[in-house]
Parts: sequence; C-alpha cells; structure tokens
Amino acid sequence: MTRADPQRVAGFLGELAKIGTDPAGGFTRLAFSESEREAHALFRSTVEGYGLRTCTDAVGNSFGFLDGTEDLPALVTGSHLDTVYQGGNYDGAVGVAAAVEIARALAESGGLRRPVWVVAFAGEEGARFGAPCIGSRLLTGSFSSETLKTLTDRDGRTAYDCAVEVGLQPDQAAAARWSADDLACFIEVHIEQGRVLEARQRELGVVHSIGGSTRIALVFSGRADHSGATPMWLRRDALAAAADFVLAAESRAKKHATTVATVGRLEVSPNSLTTVPGEVSCTLDVRDIDSDRQRDLTEELLDDAVRIGHSRAVDVSARRLSDQSPVVLHGTMHSLLSSSATALDLDFISMPSGASHDAAHIVNMTPTGMVFVPCREGISHSPEEHAESEPIAKAVDVVVHAFRQIDAGHFV
Amino acid sequence: MTRADPQRVAGFLGELAKIGTDPAGGFTRLAFSESEREAHALFRSTVEGYGLRTCTDAVGNSFGFLDGTEDLPALVTGSHLDTVYQGGNYDGAVGVAAAVEIARALAESGGLRRPVWVVAFAGEEGARFGAPCIGSRLLTGSFSSETLKTLTDRDGRTAYDCAVEVGLQPDQAAAARWSADDLACFIEVHIEQGRVLEARQRELGVVHSIGGSTRIALVFSGRADHSGATPMWLRRDALAAAADFVLAAESRAKKHATTVATVGRLEVSPNSLTTVPGEVSCTLDVRDIDSDRQRDLTEELLDDAVRIGHSRAVDVSARRLSDQSPVVLHGTMHSLLSSSATALDLDFISMPSGASHDAAHIVNMTPTGMVFVPCREGISHSPEEHAESEPIAKAVDVVVHAFRQIDAGHFV
Repeated sequence: MTRADPQRVAGFLGELAKIGTDPAGGFTRLAFSESEREAHALFRSTVEGYGLRTCTDAVGNSFGFLDGTEDLPALVTGSHLDTVYQGGNYDGAVGVAAAVEIARALAESGGLRRPVWVVAFAGEEGARFGAPCIGSRLLTGSFSSETLKTLTDRDGRTAYDCAVEVGLQPDQAAAARWSADDLACFIEVHIEQGRVLEARQRELGVVHSIGGSTRIALVFSGRADHSGATPMWLRRDALAAAADFVLAAESRAKKHATTVATVGRLEVSPNSLTTVPGEVSCTLDVRDIDSDRQRDLTEELLDDAVRIGHSRAVDVSARRLSDQSPVVLHGTMHSLLSSSATALDLDFISMPSGASHDAAHIVNMTPTGMVFVPCREGISHSPEEHAESEPIAKAVDVVVHAFRQIDAGHFV
Repeated sequence: MTRADPQRVAGFLGELAKIGTDPAGGFTRLAFSESEREAHALFRSTVEGYGLRTCTDAVGNSFGFLDGTEDLPALVTGSHLDTVYQGGNYDGAVGVAAAVEIARALAESGGLRRPVWVVAFAGEEGARFGAPCIGSRLLTGSFSSETLKTLTDRDGRTAYDCAVEVGLQPDQAAAARWSADDLACFIEVHIEQGRVLEARQRELGVVHSIGGSTRIALVFSGRADHSGATPMWLRRDALAAAADFVLAAESRAKKHATTVATVGRLEVSPNSLTTVPGEVSCTLDVRDIDSDRQRDLTEELLDDAVRIGHSRAVDVSARRLSDQSPVVLHGTMHSLLSSSATALDLDFISMPSGASHDAAHIVNMTPTGMVFVPCREGISHSPEEHAESEPIAKAVDVVVHAFRQIDAGHFV
C-alpha cells in the first residue's frame, strides 16, 4: 500500500497559499470570487496531473474522477477552498489537499473497483453571503438557483449575480444535483478548529456529530444625538444597548460546556466621535450539539434583546439568517474510520465538531464520516491558522484504508 | 428701538439652505470647502446690503463692519457656517443669521457710538480635520499656519492645503490675528443642541459655562477565532471587552448630572459572522463643566479599560486625541445678557453648554457671553436639526439690547 506523502500535502497547500492573500493579513478567498475560482483551477490541474478527469459544475463545485474497474457507486472525499475575510490557508483547504493526496495514492496504486471522486465544494463559508455550505447544499438539492437570488453580500450583491460574474451558470443548478444512487459514501478531512486534539495530544479525531448553528441579524435603533449636549438620561444609545446584548450572549453561553454564542459582526451608525450612536447592526451565531439547547438559548437571547431595547427606549428588530440543526454522522462510517485508524496504529479520539461542514449536508444523501487533524492552538478563521502536514498525511492514510475496506465489500 | 424680524432671519437661513445640501440627507459644508466659502459669500453680500463694509481674512473668517461714531473697541457677534458630514442648517448658522439681523437692526437705527463687527468664523466643526474651532483659534493665536499643516482630513489632505485650494492665504495667518485692544466684547447666539430649554419650556438660555471635552482613541486586541469551534472559556473576544467598556463609560457618567461619556465610533475586525472578534477600535468622548471631574472620569475609564483587558486576556492601548478644559464665561457678560432678557420680559434660564463653541476660544481675548435658542427635540449634528425663527429673533433683541447697554457705558 502506498503511504501518503506529507511533502506533497505541504506542496499543494504552498501553491494554494499564493492565491487570495489579503494585504491586511491572511487569506480572503470568498465564495464566488475570482480567487476561489483560481483555487479550484489549481485543484483541477493538480489531480489532472495524477490522471484524473475533472470538471467544475454549473454552481462552482469542482471534481476529479478516478475511474473504477466496475460500475459501482463512488467513494467520495473532499472539502472546500473558500475562506472567511482574512482567514487562514487550512480551513477546508486541508480536506482538499487530503483529497488530492488520496487521489494520487489510489491512482498510483492502480485504482479501485469503485470509482473515486475527489471534490472541492464552492462557497462553504457563510462569511460572504450569510448562509454556509452553498455548494454542498446545491448538490443535495436543499438550495436552488432561486436560493442564490435571495442571498446577498455586504455590498448588496446576490450570490446568483456573483456566481454569474465569475463565469458560472447558476440557472443550471438543478442539473448539477447529485443522485444518491451514484454515491457509496463521503468522507471529509478537516482541521479541528478547536483545541481538544492538542490538549489531549492526539494525532487525529474521528467525528461522531456536528454542532448546529442558528444565526440572527439584529438591528438596535436608538437616536443619534450630540455627544456633548445630550445628558445621559435623555439618550437612546444604540451601542450601549448592543453592548448589553453582546454581554448577555456571552453570559448565557458560558453556562453550558458545548454551547457557544458569538456576536461577530457589529456596525455603528453614524459612527462619529461626537455623536451618540443612533443605530447598531450586528449578528448572533449560536451553536451546540444539543438541538434543544441551541434553539432555547437563541430564544432566550432574542427575549434579552427585546428586554434590553425596552429598558433603553431602543427599538430592536431581529431576522433569522439561517438555522441548521446538529447532525449525528453515520455510525457505520464512524466505526469504519475508527477501525482504520486503529489498524494503522494511530492515536485518535472520537469527538464532536463545534464547527459545521459540508459533511453536515452530504450526510442527507450518503453515509458520511469526518476525520479531524489538529490545528495549532485551535486557531481558525484567522491569519494565525496552521496545521502540520504529518497528521494530514495520516488522515489520508485513514481515508485510503477505509475506502479500500469498502471497496473490498467489508462495509456499507 | 427696532425689533428683530423673524421673517428676515428665516429668509437668510432659507438662502443658506441652498448651499451644501448633501444628496444623502442634510447639509455637508465642511471646513475649508467650496460650500463653506459659498456660505461666507452669502453672509458678506447680505450685510453689504445693510451698508456694512466686509472682508474675508487670510484664513477664511468673514466680517461685516458697522462703523461707530467714536473710535472705541468693537462690539462683536457671530458664529460659524460650516457643518459636520450630513449635519443640519442651524448649528452655527443660527448665530450668523442672528448677527446679520443684529447688523440690520443697528444699521437701520443709525448705528452706535462703538463699531459693531459681525463675524462668520471658518471651520468650527471638528468633523473634517479632527480639531474644532480652527478659525477662532487662528484669530486668538492659539493656532498658527503651522498647525494647519498638521491637521488632515479622511483623505489625508492638510487643512493648510485645503485652505489654499479654496483661495485662502493660510501663510498669512499671523496677520489675521485679533488684537484684544480692538474688542469690547463678544456674544455668540447658538442653538442649544440639547433638550433642556424644550423640557423646561423656555424661550432662551443664557450660558454661564462651556463643557470641556477629553477625547481618547482605544484599541482592544484579543484573538480572532472560529465562532463554532472555540469554547467560551478559550476566547479572547475583543468585542466583549469593548462592550464592558461601553457600559462602564455609561455607568460612570450617569453618576453626575453634568457629566457625559460617549463611545461614538466603534469598529470590529475582522467583522465576520463566524469569527470571534479579534480587534475593536473605538473612541471615548468625556465632557463636563467641572474640569477635575472630566479628567478624573477619563482616568477612571482608562483604568477600567486596563482592568477589563486584564480580566479577558485582551490587550488595550489608548491614545489621547484632544483635551479641552471647560470654560467659565465672563460673569459680567452673563449678568448683562440676563438683565437684557429680563428687561425684554423674556422667559429664560441660566445654563451650561454641553457642546463647545467658538466662544470658548474668543473668551481668552475679550469678555464673552452666549445666548442659546431651543432646537427641536434637542437634535443636532443631524439632518433632523431644526430651530424656529421666533426665538432667534428674541435672541437678536437680547444682543441688541446688551450692545446698547455697553454702548451707553453701563457695562464692560
């Protein structure tokens, strides 16, 4: 069996690091941007080098196809290449680098009975359009071309128009959908984006469940007033109300170990040194692997916002941007990946994922598993994000082992 | 005695409202802009119509001169014609409209023993160049042409270059300085920019002191992290730290009736829905008519910021942008204006000014007083700013009465 090569993994990530570098730090390869497309072109040309056929579908997901010797459902692996604003070069990219190396390993050893597909999904990050996993949700049919027309970026441009602008055909989204009959399983390799593996000194994590996320946009509307001539008791300060809300979110989330709540975006108007803030727009992101707690906490915070607004004569409006339930991954895949890691004598743990992933959508279509690799200090969505190539190569070995087990008829 | 005419006051403000209208709402007549110069031209041509000689000095302050029958120090009144970004048509303009009407009233009644000067100061608002009262500070000598070279607007252009561009000669600033010997007193009429007159249903306010302002820029530096995979206990959330600070400023300021503290600007980086905020920049504006309380509160809040940062493992840096002391206006002028308002049977109160004004600088040169007129709901620095002409006309009557008292030798 050909073992994965950390140098080649590092090589692909090094090439990728030339794309979408942000002058302000880190990488900005947004969904449906030119730099995301450039990254996809790198992915395709790399796997073409290993003899795979490739294509990019109408909505921007890119594929490499390694033919099998029999006409059977495919073994699929991959992740995404887009980033948040000023993100790192590992979130998503590690899973695509792993898929590239899986393709090389299997191609060079003569392929399998089953076809193998490697994939780079489009637009996984919600950073640009609010909704995450656009590419994978179009593949599973939970998103359509009409959905793309309702999603807008900070400049008010729709995901549909942005996709057209980079040469895609989002009106053909329906034709790009996957059929469950063509798929045997999906495995996604990803950085942990947390510090559990590092804290427990493990090489890999095999994921059993993915946290859900409820996202809310809020607007606090008070009154812009002169900062010198408006006594404190006459103020309707939108920023003070938002500050109450930020701290309420933090305080409530701290009560449960698996719950997180984040106010990540916040904008002040008119944003002038000498003016009491008249309006504040912000977002709330609540995540948990417990579905009820995720929804209950969100409702409690919306009640907090109303209460805060009432006490300050500040109007509050809230709009649900997205609401994704936690996901339990397939027990069979979890078991298979654990067995493969054990067979390869790797030091792994079974764990939940706090972040969501394309796998949380593909799970609706085919048996799905995930493998986590550590990232330094758990830092992600940051220019400081870093992952070593050795554990990625070990994750590749696990996936290749698991694919061979399925190919030999032992699972699925 | 000729009484002031509200229709004429409204007429001047109506002409002014044709200048510098902002397509986004309100008026944008910035310091040393073409529209500020156009407003000064309107001022000059209007008082020339009443027989006054006029000029604009090297740094953009404009004057109308009504000769006296004797060679005595002048009675001076006026305010400014520039605005903040998207401001209203009354802040500053009301004092110039009053000065125009004072000139008319005195000219038509044959003038006084003393010369009367009406003035439109250049660049009172700090909105463009950060520093307020540029024109009046050049007149008193606390600013020089060198100062203008250190002040820059958002495009990085200096006040000096902007002044040259609209045809002024800022290198001649020294020659434009006033001499205290030429001045008998200065009275500025201004909108209150607060809600005290409205709440107490008074026609006018006679100002006894002007609040000082200490302005600080702060940066909270935590760590940008993934919003899903970073447990609450591992976070270094810069926005949560800033929220603590916003509420500390509010809480401390609320303890004193005359103290205000405002976080008016706040910017989050990377400002992404799915990222724990890594850095927050914000401003603090502390004002009080009590100099010690202004400085003590600022120090307390800087201590708070350090304490908050320490408790959250968030770094904090702070930079003093400006620090202006409160000003007590001349008791003689305060007494004179109160007497004139009483003689005219007007319903006034004695009050502090929360906002700063050109008067706060002219006070260093000559006995200075201020008269406030109400503005609707206290709104200022906003397109919603509004003042009625009747109280402005009453303020004109008060100033004319006070000038006549001085001219008759009763005061100063």
